[in-house]
Amino acid sequence: MEMTQGLKNRGRTREDVDDRRRAVENFTGEKLPTIANCPFDPQLAEKNIENMIGITSIPLGFVGPLLVQGNEAKGEFLVPLATTEGALVASVNRGSSVITAAGGATTMVVKDEMTRGPVFRARDLRHASEAAEWIELNMDKIRAAAEATTRRGKLLSATPYIVGRSLFLRFSYSTSDAMGMNMATIASEAASRLIEEHTGVTMISVSGNMCVDKKPSALNALAGRGKTVLADVTIPRELLEKRMHTSPEAVVETCYRKCNIGSALSASLGFNAHVANMLAAVYIATGQDPAQVAEGSMGMTTAELVGGDLYMSVRLPAIEVGTVGGGTRLPAQREALAMIDCLGDGKAVKFAEIIGAIVLAGELSTLCAQSAGQLGEAHARLGR
Amino acid sequence: MEMTQGLKNRGRTREDVDDRRRAVENFTGEKLPTIANCPFDPQLAEKNIENMIGITSIPLGFVGPLLVQGNEAKGEFLVPLATTEGALVASVNRGSSVITAAGGATTMVVKDEMTRGPVFRARDLRHASEAAEWIELNMDKIRAAAEATTRRGKLLSATPYIVGRSLFLRFSYSTSDAMGMNMATIASEAASRLIEEHTGVTMISVSGNMCVDKKPSALNALAGRGKTVLADVTIPRELLEKRMHTSPEAVVETCYRKCNIGSALSASLGFNAHVANMLAAVYIATGQDPAQVAEGSMGMTTAELVGGDLYMSVRLPAIEVGTVGGGTRLPAQREALAMIDCLGDGKAVKFAEIIGAIVLAGELSTLCAQSAGQLGEAHARLGR
Amino acid sequence: MEMTQGLKNRGRTREDVDDRRRAVENFTGEKLPTIANCPFDPQLAEKNIENMIGITSIPLGFVGPLLVQGNEAKGEFLVPLATTEGALVASVNRGSSVITAAGGATTMVVKDEMTRGPVFRARDLRHASEAAEWIELNMDKIRAAAEATTRRGKLLSATPYIVGRSLFLRFSYSTSDAMGMNMATIASEAASRLIEEHTGVTMISVSGNMCVDKKPSALNALAGRGKTVLADVTIPRELLEKRMHTSPEAVVETCYRKCNIGSALSASLGFNAHVANMLAAVYIATGQDPAQVAEGSMGMTTAELVGGDLYMSVRLPAIEVGTVGGGTRLPAQREALAMIDCLGDGKAVKFAEIIGAIVLAGELSTLCAQSAGQLGEAHARLGR
Amino acid sequence: MEMTQGLKNRGRTREDVDDRRRAVENFTGEKLPTIANCPFDPQLAEKNIENMIGITSIPLGFVGPLLVQGNEAKGEFLVPLATTEGALVASVNRGSSVITAAGGATTMVVKDEMTRGPVFRARDLRHASEAAEWIELNMDKIRAAAEATTRRGKLLSATPYIVGRSLFLRFSYSTSDAMGMNMATIASEAASRLIEEHTGVTMISVSGNMCVDKKPSALNALAGRGKTVLADVTIPRELLEKRMHTSPEAVVETCYRKCNIGSALSASLGFNAHVANMLAAVYIATGQDPAQVAEGSMGMTTAELVGGDLYMSVRLPAIEVGTVGGGTRLPAQREALAMIDCLGDGKAVKFAEIIGAIVLAGELSTLCAQSAGQLGEAHARLGR
Repeated sequence: MEMTQGLKNRGRTREDVDDRRRAVENFTGEKLPTIANCPFDPQLAEKNIENMIGITSIPLGFVGPLLVQGNEAKGEFLVPLATTEGALVASVNRGSSVITAAGGATTMVVKDEMTRGPVFRARDLRHASEAAEWIELNMDKIRAAAEATTRRGKLLSATPYIVGRSLFLRFSYSTSDAMGMNMATIASEAASRLIEEHTGVTMISVSGNMCVDKKPSALNALAGRGKTVLADVTIPRELLEKRMHTSPEAVVETCYRKCNIGSALSASLGFNAHVANMLAAVYIATGQDPAQVAEGSMGMTTAELVGGDLYMSVRLPAIEVGTVGGGTRLPAQREALAMIDCLGDGKAVKFAEIIGAIVLAGELSTLCAQSAGQLGEAHARLGR
Repeated sequence: MEMTQGLKNRGRTREDVDDRRRAVENFTGEKLPTIANCPFDPQLAEKNIENMIGITSIPLGFVGPLLVQGNEAKGEFLVPLATTEGALVASVNRGSSVITAAGGATTMVVKDEMTRGPVFRARDLRHASEAAEWIELNMDKIRAAAEATTRRGKLLSATPYIVGRSLFLRFSYSTSDAMGMNMATIASEAASRLIEEHTGVTMISVSGNMCVDKKPSALNALAGRGKTVLADVTIPRELLEKRMHTSPEAVVETCYRKCNIGSALSASLGFNAHVANMLAAVYIATGQDPAQVAEGSMGMTTAELVGGDLYMSVRLPAIEVGTVGGGTRLPAQREALAMIDCLGDGKAVKFAEIIGAIVLAGELSTLCAQSAGQLGEAHARLGR
Repeated sequence: MEMTQGLKNRGRTREDVDDRRRAVENFTGEKLPTIANCPFDPQLAEKNIENMIGITSIPLGFVGPLLVQGNEAKGEFLVPLATTEGALVASVNRGSSVITAAGGATTMVVKDEMTRGPVFRARDLRHASEAAEWIELNMDKIRAAAEATTRRGKLLSATPYIVGRSLFLRFSYSTSDAMGMNMATIASEAASRLIEEHTGVTMISVSGNMCVDKKPSALNALAGRGKTVLADVTIPRELLEKRMHTSPEAVVETCYRKCNIGSALSASLGFNAHVANMLAAVYIATGQDPAQVAEGSMGMTTAELVGGDLYMSVRLPAIEVGTVGGGTRLPAQREALAMIDCLGDGKAVKFAEIIGAIVLAGELSTLCAQSAGQLGEAHARLGR
Repeated sequence: MEMTQGLKNRGRTREDVDDRRRAVENFTGEKLPTIANCPFDPQLAEKNIENMIGITSIPLGFVGPLLVQGNEAKGEFLVPLATTEGALVASVNRGSSVITAAGGATTMVVKDEMTRGPVFRARDLRHASEAAEWIELNMDKIRAAAEATTRRGKLLSATPYIVGRSLFLRFSYSTSDAMGMNMATIASEAASRLIEEHTGVTMISVSGNMCVDKKPSALNALAGRGKTVLADVTIPRELLEKRMHTSPEAVVETCYRKCNIGSALSASLGFNAHVANMLAAVYIATGQDPAQVAEGSMGMTTAELVGGDLYMSVRLPAIEVGTVGGGTRLPAQREALAMIDCLGDGKAVKFAEIIGAIVLAGELSTLCAQSAGQLGEAHARLGR
């Protein structure tokens, strides 16, 4: 049938997409006119999706001007956020405005490594430990095998962990301005084949969950994955009181009972208010992988009273972003990256710093609102 | 200046959006023609975003027909996925096709509660414990206060936890077909005001991170948030070998070393392959909150050899989705929900069951590919 | 050989113990004169050990008078601590003395349940969920089967969790003044046999690690195991300054950076200074199971500045202790329990409250010492 | 009063101990004759306890001969266990006997580092990062300051972590045959003073819970503390069936549903059966710190079917033991260490290897018993 043909259509032209969508409409009995409305040539998405039938439109707003005092990101930025959660952009914007008035957010990237963690099967413990030893002694060969597969990637280290017959390796790479997971996967596979040949262990999976991709894990919260981003700001008491209708003491207490005690009690890996919200909105707007919000959400937010003012900081151990490759190839996403001058080579660290600042703005705003007892009221008014 | 006026524009008509976007273009010096191309009247998004300047276009594909044998979801579905990660749709589709050939995925929702967890400050332990006692004895009043704020929501329980002067309450609600966080927030705020009045404790935050929203936490992995979804399937050996080019034994070993041992070793809360990928793609396509992938990613995937065949299952403790409200008001998102007949009232459990099945399909496919040593190769070929 | 006979000796008289020890001396070539010196008839230990060759002597000290304002424990206590860690008793005593001077520690038991969590194998998800349903509907029969095995134990609840073909049940019991693990195991086994018969699931282990015995787990940190004990105290500023040579502010900051931020960053389940120290010393002195320090160590300690004074609290979710049975049958252990009037029936809650107070004393003292920069110095002087 | 004088007595002779105990007897109204019976001169315990009133007697048994094939520990050992938990020694002995019959346990120490993690307060993020940089550039000076305080200790590394104004350092030391915590504390304090002087940060606590001492933590589960010990064994099918009345398949399934799935579901850091039991019993017998069972309990046990036989392994990331110093100074504890030729210099790694083997024996035995449905029955018969 035509319907079945459409479902099996493997093409990528606009006609192919339209045929396929019509087959879906026939199969489901539902018309998809908004999805049909693709503002770009679908062939541009050929490395981003299969079975394409159109697009999803996500409302795009912005926050700013947000003043950032980073090592790479310096100046005022209008930051794009794509979301369907009412009140989010307004809330982050409120935090952003106060940060800017306070002189901007300091932000920095303190670690920058993409990881892949294959798992091998050895005969037994002795064999696994001999293989680990071979790996340690032959890092030059392993590095050569890994780096032969990539132009940008550099293998930084390979840390072994043994559990009985399972040998895990956590490979860490510098991946330049790409997020780098694909690069790390291909390089790790090549390195692993070399290890198999020389040690007799068998690779069971190129990803043995010591990577750890798209799952929350203490390993990444501690050791970092992608960029480990730090940001802080001091908000003068008067500014806080005037603009946020709360006090430094109230924000500090809210952060303490919620992000310190509450998160500890719930055995959470995220000691923050809503880091995931800002990450999801920026990631979707700029062509990052939104599934990596799973790790990104493990941020730690602190608030302290310093000299009568409010000191706030965020630590984001797993910001896995790039300014080349992946979803950054698509037109709307390129425009969003261009808005903050983060498109292309040499921009990934700058981009991560801006993310640190925007997350800080969101955390500040929500903690202020909660400390002032305004959260439910804001939701009710802005209608999400 | 015009630019500043545009940045401060609070309107929601297409003209307002265009003015605002032009101000952003002026400020940043970048043209945003793709973002400009909004296929619907921006006023439709008035409860979904502020500072709107246009839309982000996410490529939309589909997977299926996927045969689901749920309690509510029965039949073959074409499931919409929005993603920019090449190879994802193809991979999930491969798993889906094998599940369908094997007779479909069994899936069910075993718990369905939305939570909000305010934190109060008491004078001391004695005071906190007296307040907890008052709450236990006055649940009727508390329920009445909470439910007075909502048409759909029902307060199911309120569990207290005391840490020194901090009294945490975890309110659980039935929220019908809405995801229900906003409802739960407003109801909890009302209930908390009542508690404040009668016990003398002070609400410090309506969200004390015992909710736990948008952070991974053992509490939600155990007790669930939103829908707790289970799914399983048995794939006959021959089908697996023919279609996946791997064996039940190889998949079981891959799942064991990766999802059991590897995730345990990395101290992860996600014992799975890439649950977050499927969730993010479905959530974006259907107007769910992609930040809740943070919790959703805590799935547990198992693979066992049963009678020579491959048995696989997923447990998803925190699927926070709705078929009314939030992002489901937007046109493309409504079309996507309609594709699987999950738009509107009475559809949320069915929707969650379909999510269980699609996640199972993705897990099956990736574990098969990794067990066959094909992951890096697939990425290289499909070019993500 | 005589040696081999001694090693295989199964007797319990003093002569048997001596013969067996001599065989060990022959085998190892080492004399064991201190171990030989058993101050009681070894037959008293027949339910406590096998292959007995003598005793280990642990130095026993005491802390106090410690003023406790519990629900059951009221008054001043001299608390026995058995330890080989120099400075520990002195340190806890210092904290105890300040607590007593401040009017005593408030302490209470807010939950008291011993758990056992068998795991069953079902055919598949559908079967597991049917079994869970049967269990819910037949709790009366299950309770009868469980309680038929015990005089003291009462089955309070049975919570099911399904992961694919694995069905976990967490049974909770009231076990009166016994720690109750043995009782819970035997009762759970009986209940599980009934469940097997009626549902067709197969018990794979009576302990499926949802108990969770002798392992740290978020489940027990949240839901509690044994007694959940809370304690707090307010130390007036002057008292603290005079006796501890530190300030409320310094202690609060130390607790914050160490027990809140540091424990969160290390992904610990123990948000405290050294709870395990006090538990191990009391448990060994009083015949409790020192392996349960694994769970006990998951305490949460808080310090706050309240009205210029120091407020401190501990939350101990898993204090698994008894005043009858187990190691409380031995003579030195009975004497230690008698010291605090906690031997025998009707004393377990009182005992747990005293533990809460002594842990609070230890936490107070160490946090004061660390805040005053005295830890290394104390160790150096007292020579551990 | 005499009583008060006795309570305040600070002496360490036998007369002092007796006086003090009599004062306790007067205060409490309880006689303590068994506690009084100290088989050694109390002055030997002067570095191990304060306020000494006598001893606690813990029944001591042994397990073995246990055949160990370690790197340092080679041969058959009779391993001392001090416990009051009936059935434990018998159970471990059963596992030990099967391991010995199977050719012994392979065991090795793959990491050996004692850690201390001070926390400093900086002015802000920028200051903290400058201090971290200074530390990295001045490791020679820091090492010199640390090592000036110790004969045996070597500073191996110092890893910084920044959270806002909090700068954490995790110092790792080689501590030779001492457990080394005291050494690490004193050395870290000296190093921290140097850091304070040169960078302007303020040490808030010499232990900032990135150590992490006596609390379970993912950090130590991953990075190790003290000795990381691995052990494995393969038990031939026939031997297992004959001696344990179970099959390799049953043990593998029990381990899988309990230690893999169950521990994951309960969000435990201990993926094992009862590692804490063996550690507590050996630690108490040999003068180790039983509070460190909190970390030790985080072992991971695996069971696999290999060539029809049962393969089992344990990974113990935090075995913090010494053969000099601390409780190893006491006479009964020295005898126990001497039994396994682990007293004094050059023996700590050997000791850790024996611990690996005895833990493996206990895990094997319990998993066999549970797989055979014998746990409750064994407890009932042996009466714990």
